[in-house]
Amino acid sequence: VGKSVDPRLIRSREAILTAAKELLRKHGPPAVTHQRVAAQAGVGRATVYRHWPQPEQLRLEAMAGLGLPFFRDPIVPVRPWLHGQLRYYADEMAMPEVVSVALILFQRAKDPAVAEAGRQFRSATTDRVRTALDLAITHGELTLTIPREDAAARLVGPILYQAWIQIDVVTDDLIGRLIDGIGTWS
Amino acid sequence: VGKSVDPRLIRSREAILTAAKELLRKHGPPAVTHQRVAAQAGVGRATVYRHWPQPEQLRLEAMAGLGLPFFRDPIVPVRPWLHGQLRYYADEMAMPEVVSVALILFQRAKDPAVAEAGRQFRSATTDRVRTALDLAITHGELTLTIPREDAAARLVGPILYQAWIQIDVVTDDLIGRLIDGIGTWS
Repeated sequence: VGKSVDPRLIRSREAILTAAKELLRKHGPPAVTHQRVAAQAGVGRATVYRHWPQPEQLRLEAMAGLGLPFFRDPIVPVRPWLHGQLRYYADEMAMPEVVSVALILFQRAKDPAVAEAGRQFRSATTDRVRTALDLAITHGELTLTIPREDAAARLVGPILYQAWIQIDVVTDDLIGRLIDGIGTWS
Repeated sequence: VGKSVDPRLIRSREAILTAAKELLRKHGPPAVTHQRVAAQAGVGRATVYRHWPQPEQLRLEAMAGLGLPFFRDPIVPVRPWLHGQLRYYADEMAMPEVVSVALILFQRAKDPAVAEAGRQFRSATTDRVRTALDLAITHGELTLTIPREDAAARLVGPILYQAWIQIDVVTDDLIGRLIDGIGTWS
């Protein structure tokens, strides 16, 4: 940044972002509104609007700071953990506030910061699912019956389809069938 | 519409939309630009901008008029037809111009026309895949090994994941494995 920036603006930006991450972590994306973030940060609503005219942008930056919340830290036995994570993913993807942020991440963004956040979120999803399945394979819990590189797409893809295209409930039974569809679980 | 509208505006709107549909049918979504549509319709570019400030809106309205191009009119044997349709779908979903229109259709749109177009596109995908599979079942070509209501999500969902999240090539082998994953084909 070549030109000097008012230090009060930088401070308010950081305070707002900290408040947004706090609300996001505790109450999820719908809580990240201009009004609640302003109250939490102790600034006026106009100040929040000045930095982030759209709530999606603020949610996106807060989410990028927290990192992708799904498929983190797998534990053995992997199957119930994976079921819980897919359940959580399905529930989040059914929330309009999450969809609006996710859709920004799917586009080839012009803003380099948004493009990089999108790239990280996307690759993290696949990498983490693979790490979890590797753990299950190592522990003798899973024998894959499909190529390893298909697994993330065949677990997560149908959930996205169900939530976004079919606009239908993702049942626990469907999640169970998707998990069974990738291999033999002991 | 309560207030009177300049009939020249209505005529130019129809001419532009006809031109956009023609370009879309012949050359695909990337061809639907303000410049090419204006040339095809024989109007000035400013007139196109006046009706549709964003190219996405024009593409969306032209696509809604043409209907969903995927999974239409299945034929026996269904398996090669389905493979070709999933190939076509995967190739289209890898195009940035298609993604930008599809993302509009996935959001809960405020504009009632866009919301209705989105609803129709979404339900048509699932309905047509089911119709094709029913045809294969009726002809003794397919025995499903998963519930019928999962089939569209498990065929199309992984392709969306691969194209939009993994940002990876959808190979013909993957399409073949997805088709094999829903049942036994004769």
